[in-house]
Amino acid sequence: MTILLVGLGAALGAILRYQLTRIGNHIASEFPLMTFLINLTGSFCLGWLTGSQLSQPVTLFLGVGVLGGYTTFSTLNSELSQLWFRRRYHIFFGYWLLTYGLGLLVAAAGFYAGL
Amino acid sequence: MTILLVGLGAALGAILRYQLTRIGNHIASEFPLMTFLINLTGSFCLGWLTGSQLSQPVTLFLGVGVLGGYTTFSTLNSELSQLWFRRRYHIFFGYWLLTYGLGLLVAAAGFYAGL
Repeated sequence: MTILLVGLGAALGAILRYQLTRIGNHIASEFPLMTFLINLTGSFCLGWLTGSQLSQPVTLFLGVGVLGGYTTFSTLNSELSQLWFRRRYHIFFGYWLLTYGLGLLVAAAGFYAGL
Repeated sequence: MTILLVGLGAALGAILRYQLTRIGNHIASEFPLMTFLINLTGSFCLGWLTGSQLSQPVTLFLGVGVLGGYTTFSTLNSELSQLWFRRRYHIFFGYWLLTYGLGLLVAAAGFYAGL
């Protein structure tokens, strides 16, 4: 049962990420705006969820499932390494610092909001 | 069809992450070892996948789906903020620097391995 909650949640989260990324592909920018926004909003929501201490099934479905499938660490690093290989150093450092700095801040803000 | 590939892949990836995390919970350590290993192995694999330039359905299923569901940015930041709140500063900085530094390196190594 728990596996089904995680799997179904992750499928929904990943499909939302995929659709948002497709919309983002129409934006003529080298900055990976959609992955950036997805990871920040997902981190805020998981922080909120952790602070709220909801029931285990809800946490499994929304936290481990939906938000785990919605946010992505592998795409972030793949995009970062591609920016480095293409020598887009200013976008690389901007994306790196903003994601890593703000990701942590919004997770903490979400946690406090959920208390 | 593409949405089904992404959703199914993400469900499988998230279930694998969930099961590995459950195994990791038996390890008596404050360092979130499993999320760390999941994010690094996932970043290597996505780098490899990007370098390999496989067909679009395979990339959607394995990259956007499985690896997107397997790795997680929100859990990483939630764990980091919890370490900070609990004043485990040495674990916080170790986890932060190792994940952010090595994540990028293994994604780049995977990309070269896949070329």
